Amino acid sequence: MPGVKKPLFPAPQDAEAAFYEAFTKCDLDAMMAVWADDDDIYCVHPGGPRLTGVEKVRESWRQIFASGQRLTFQLREQQYLQGMMLSVHSVYEHISIAGEQRSRGPVIATNVYQRTERGWRMVVHHASPAPAGGVPVGSDPEPRRAAKTLH
Amino acid sequence: MPGVKKPLFPAPQDAEAAFYEAFTKCDLDAMMAVWADDDDIYCVHPGGPRLTGVEKVRESWRQIFASGQRLTFQLREQQYLQGMMLSVHSVYEHISIAGEQRSRGPVIATNVYQRTERGWRMVVHHASPAPAGGVPVGSDPEPRRAAKTLH
Repeated sequence: MPGVKKPLFPAPQDAEAAFYEAFTKCDLDAMMAVWADDDDIYCVHPGGPRLTGVEKVRESWRQIFASGQRLTFQLREQQYLQGMMLSVHSVYEHISIAGEQRSRGPVIATNVYQRTERGWRMVVHHASPAPAGGVPVGSDPEPRRAAKTLH
Repeated sequence: MPGVKKPLFPAPQDAEAAFYEAFTKCDLDAMMAVWADDDDIYCVHPGGPRLTGVEKVRESWRQIFASGQRLTFQLREQQYLQGMMLSVHSVYEHISIAGEQRSRGPVIATNVYQRTERGWRMVVHHASPAPAGGVPVGSDPEPRRAAKTLH
């Protein structure tokens, strides 16, 4: 869409907020405005393959939004790794579906943002289903931060 | 392990090679030498929860290596996003298990490395099972690079 002015995201958190807002609203243009215009962007939906490049990423969101399901998100246990040009966010997405009583099991997402001329934009969304209860390998209930251990 | 000198990884690729070598050899010390000594490191094994911090990450690898399964990896369709302080790698891991004829379905991994005083170290390993065949959402067989599309 040449000539369409895209919003600027001064911080990765702004891009992340816009990502989940676009997801909630099923707004494809707003969703793609969050993503960088780059061959190397990629998206892994829960249980899905890696989709690389703007065309495939856009098409996947188009299909998801076309399903008509309206989702709402609660983001928990957010963690950030901040660099000069890249910012890596990890969140637990607790997803509710309009019209369904039960919420889905949580999804773990690694979201990567890159600083561009137009502000911070998403370059990676890697999502995978988190185990629904049970005792996972090497894990007790996840605190916000693990104790610091220097080796 | 105070006083133990850890290897330096001059490039993220060196850390990545060391990661898969340690995984192949079930070498826990070598594995943990690849990871940064940081509260914020996290690891998501395929289908698993997010394990945050050195203790939980180490314990998960200890359990995996204790199982005695010897794996070999073929890495394919590698993609890199390189920043000053962070480097994001995406790979398809094609895993074979010693003693088994069939290889497992591939795993998609997002590996993030951070530049530290001791060179590049792993800070994130987020792995999820890729679909075994079938036609995934919005996807045809993944080429090495998608065509560039500027909006």
